[in-house]
Amino acid sequence: MSSESTSPVIDTARRAQEAAAELAPSPRTVRDGALLAIADALVARTEEIIAANAEDVAKARAAGTSEAVVDRLTLTPERVAAIASDVRDVVALPDPVGEVVRGSTLPNGLELRQVRVPLGVVGIVYEARPNVTVDAAALCLKSGNAVLLRGSSSAYASNTALVGVLRDAVAGAGLPADVVQLVPGEGRESVRELMRARGLVDVLIPRGGASLIRTVVEESTVPVIETGVGNCHVYVDAAADLDMAVSILLNAKVSRPSVCNAAETLLVHADVAEEFLPMALKALGEVGVTVHGDETVQRFTGMGAPVLPATDEDWETEYLSYDIAVAVVPDLDAAVRHIRRWSSGHSEAIVTGSQAAARRFVQRVDSTAVLVNASTRFTDGGQFGFGAEIGISTQKLHARGPMGLPELTSTKYVVTGDGHVR
Amino acid sequence: MSSESTSPVIDTARRAQEAAAELAPSPRTVRDGALLAIADALVARTEEIIAANAEDVAKARAAGTSEAVVDRLTLTPERVAAIASDVRDVVALPDPVGEVVRGSTLPNGLELRQVRVPLGVVGIVYEARPNVTVDAAALCLKSGNAVLLRGSSSAYASNTALVGVLRDAVAGAGLPADVVQLVPGEGRESVRELMRARGLVDVLIPRGGASLIRTVVEESTVPVIETGVGNCHVYVDAAADLDMAVSILLNAKVSRPSVCNAAETLLVHADVAEEFLPMALKALGEVGVTVHGDETVQRFTGMGAPVLPATDEDWETEYLSYDIAVAVVPDLDAAVRHIRRWSSGHSEAIVTGSQAAARRFVQRVDSTAVLVNASTRFTDGGQFGFGAEIGISTQKLHARGPMGLPELTSTKYVVTGDGHVR
Repeated sequence: MSSESTSPVIDTARRAQEAAAELAPSPRTVRDGALLAIADALVARTEEIIAANAEDVAKARAAGTSEAVVDRLTLTPERVAAIASDVRDVVALPDPVGEVVRGSTLPNGLELRQVRVPLGVVGIVYEARPNVTVDAAALCLKSGNAVLLRGSSSAYASNTALVGVLRDAVAGAGLPADVVQLVPGEGRESVRELMRARGLVDVLIPRGGASLIRTVVEESTVPVIETGVGNCHVYVDAAADLDMAVSILLNAKVSRPSVCNAAETLLVHADVAEEFLPMALKALGEVGVTVHGDETVQRFTGMGAPVLPATDEDWETEYLSYDIAVAVVPDLDAAVRHIRRWSSGHSEAIVTGSQAAARRFVQRVDSTAVLVNASTRFTDGGQFGFGAEIGISTQKLHARGPMGLPELTSTKYVVTGDGHVR
Repeated sequence: MSSESTSPVIDTARRAQEAAAELAPSPRTVRDGALLAIADALVARTEEIIAANAEDVAKARAAGTSEAVVDRLTLTPERVAAIASDVRDVVALPDPVGEVVRGSTLPNGLELRQVRVPLGVVGIVYEARPNVTVDAAALCLKSGNAVLLRGSSSAYASNTALVGVLRDAVAGAGLPADVVQLVPGEGRESVRELMRARGLVDVLIPRGGASLIRTVVEESTVPVIETGVGNCHVYVDAAADLDMAVSILLNAKVSRPSVCNAAETLLVHADVAEEFLPMALKALGEVGVTVHGDETVQRFTGMGAPVLPATDEDWETEYLSYDIAVAVVPDLDAAVRHIRRWSSGHSEAIVTGSQAAARRFVQRVDSTAVLVNASTRFTDGGQFGFGAEIGISTQKLHARGPMGLPELTSTKYVVTGDGHVR
C-alpha cells in the first residue's frame, strides 16, 4: 500500500523501496563487494570529502559552535581512513540474511522454514557526526537493506560528499545506487515527511538527543526503534564489597560521561550508607563530580563531592555530565521500585556479594541490561561481541539492547509442499 | 516515564503495570496454576456467563444484527467448555519466559546471557467474539504479561462476566487480579486513551477488520503489532501441474473465505492461461465464486464462474467472500511485481514444477509467508505447530507471521562479573 502523494522525500523513499527489492535477494559476495568498493573509494576520494567537510567546519565556527562539537564534526585523512577500516570490519561479520532461524517438517509433510530477510528500507535520523553516515550505510547494506540517511544540517556538505562516494561505489559494484540515499532538504519538514512515509519506509531509527527521539516516537506512523536515552543506575547492596562498589561507580560515571551507558543515579542500601557514602563522595569529589543527593545524602556534605539537594527532576535526568543523583534506599525492593519509576530502562547494575540479592534484582529490574558486579558501561555492541552496532534499543519490541546486524532483519516463513491443501 | 494524567482507562493501565511487575518474576507453576483455576472456574460458573451473554444476544437481535454475527456472539455450555479446554491446552505449552536466547562468556570473563522476559502490559483491541477474551488472557498470562482487554461493546456483558471469572480465579491462585482487566467504557474515546498510554502499555495488538487496524496503527503512540489483513495471492507458473493448481486455488479460496489466509487474487502465467483459465473458471463457478478479471480473463466469460471486469480496487481488496480477482501475467517477475504492488504482505503461493521458478519467487516475494505448491490456508499458528496464536502479524518488526508465545516476550541482557570495569 504505497502512498500516492509525491514530494522530494517521498520520491526518495519510493526509489529506496525499488532498490531494496533488488538488493534483498543479492548474495553476500555482491554486498561484501560493494562494501569493499566503498572502503577503497573513501580512501581514494579523501581529498574531496575533506574539502566538503571544511565547508561545514567553517560554517560551524562562524556560527560560534563549541570546539567540542566542531571536533566531532571534523574529518581528517586519518579519520576517513579509520571510517574505511570500520567498513572493512563489517565485511568480515557473518551475513544475517538467509539464516534459518527455525525449521521443521510438519506432520502433513510440509517443510517449514523461518528465514531471516532484510527489513527493506531503513531510515536513520541522526545528529552531527559524519562517520555515522558511513557506519549506518555499511550496516544496512550488509544486512540487505536500503538506507535513507537524514543527518543534521550542520554536516550537510560532508554527508552529501560521503553519500556521493558511497553511491558511486555501490553502483560500480553492480547494485542500484539508490540503496544509499541522503534525504533531501535540511529543514524539519523533511524529517516529518519521512516519519509519515508508512508503507515506503519499514523502520525509522532516531539516533541522538532525547528530544529528537521523543519527536520521532510521538509523530511517526512508520515503526520506530527507540535508541539511546540512558538514565542508568548503580545500586550498592547491603552485601556489597564497598571497594568494588567505588570502582564500579567511578567507572560507570566518569569513564565517559557523555554516553548513554554512563551511570546517572547511585542508590545505596541504608545498612551500608554510613560507611559507603563517605567513600563514594570522596572518590567522586576527586574526579570532579557533583552529587545531587536526597536528605540522607545531604548529611554527608563536606566529605568530598559537593552535594546539592536532589529533586524529582534529578531522579529522571540523564545528565551526560559530571553530575550524579544519589539516594539512600531502605532495602533492595525499594531500589527496584526507584528504578522502575525513574529509569529509562537502559542499564542498571547491582553491586552485591549476595546470590539471593543478585537473583532478586535481576528478576525484578526490567531494563535492557541488568549487570551484576559490573559497570553499566559494558552495555555496548562492541563489548557484547556483536562486532557492530546501529544503536542501543531501549524499547521492548523487535530489538532490545545493542542492535547488531540480526536486529536489522525481519523473517519470513517459507513453506514447501507438493500440492498440500487443508 | 509514566504519564501524569488520570482517567479510568489510565488508572486501569497503571494497575496493570503494577500487577505486571508482580507477575513477571512468578515461576511457571504459579502461572500454570492460575490458568488451571481459570479453566475450572469457567466450567463451574458457566450459568452466570451464559446469563450475561444472553443480554448481549438479546440486544444484538433487537438491533437487527445478522444471524451469522449473533451466532459468533452466542455462548452455550458446550462453547464455554471448549474455551476452558483451550485454556488447559495453553498450560501444556512450553514456558517462553526465562528461555536463554543466547549466551557467552566474553573475553574479559563477563558472563553474558540474553533471556526472554514478558513484554509487560499487552493491550488487545478486538471485535465481537467473547472467546477471544479468554484466549488472549490465557496467552498473556502464560507469557507473564498483564493484559488489558478492549472487546466490542456488543459483547460487553459477556466480557464483563468472563473477566470477572478470570480475575477471581487469578486472585485465588495467588496472583494480582489486575493482571487481567477489561478496559472501562464502551465508546471510541477509551480506545483512543489506550492508544496514547505510552509508558504504561507496552504493546497494542488490534484484532479485527482493516479499519480498526488502520485506526490503531495511525493514531497509537503505543507500539502496535499489526495483524490480520490478508490480500493473499496464488500464482500459477508456466511450469505448474495444472490439476494441482486447481486444487490449491479452490482450497485457498473457498475452504474458509472469511479468514485472512484465504486467497483473494489469482495470477496466471500467460503461457498456461489458455489451458488453465477454463479449468479454473469451471471449478470456481461450481462452488459459486465470482471472478473479477483483467481483459485477458474477460475473454473467457461463459466458461464457468461469472467474470466481471477488474479495476485497481479489485487488486487491492481483501474480499473475504466468494469473489476472486484474476490477472494474466507475462512472466514470473511480473507476478512478483503485481504482488509487491498490491499485496498486504500476508501469504502468497506459487504453483510450479520448476525449482528455479520456486527459488526466484521465494527470494523475491517479501511477505510473511511464501508457499510453494501449498495452499495459503496453511499460514496459521495451529498449522505451523505453535500450539496457540494471538494473531498473525503482517508487519516486519518484532514478529512476522503467526504469533505464538515467544512473540509475546521481549528479552533482556543479564551480565555477570566480579567487579568488572572498562
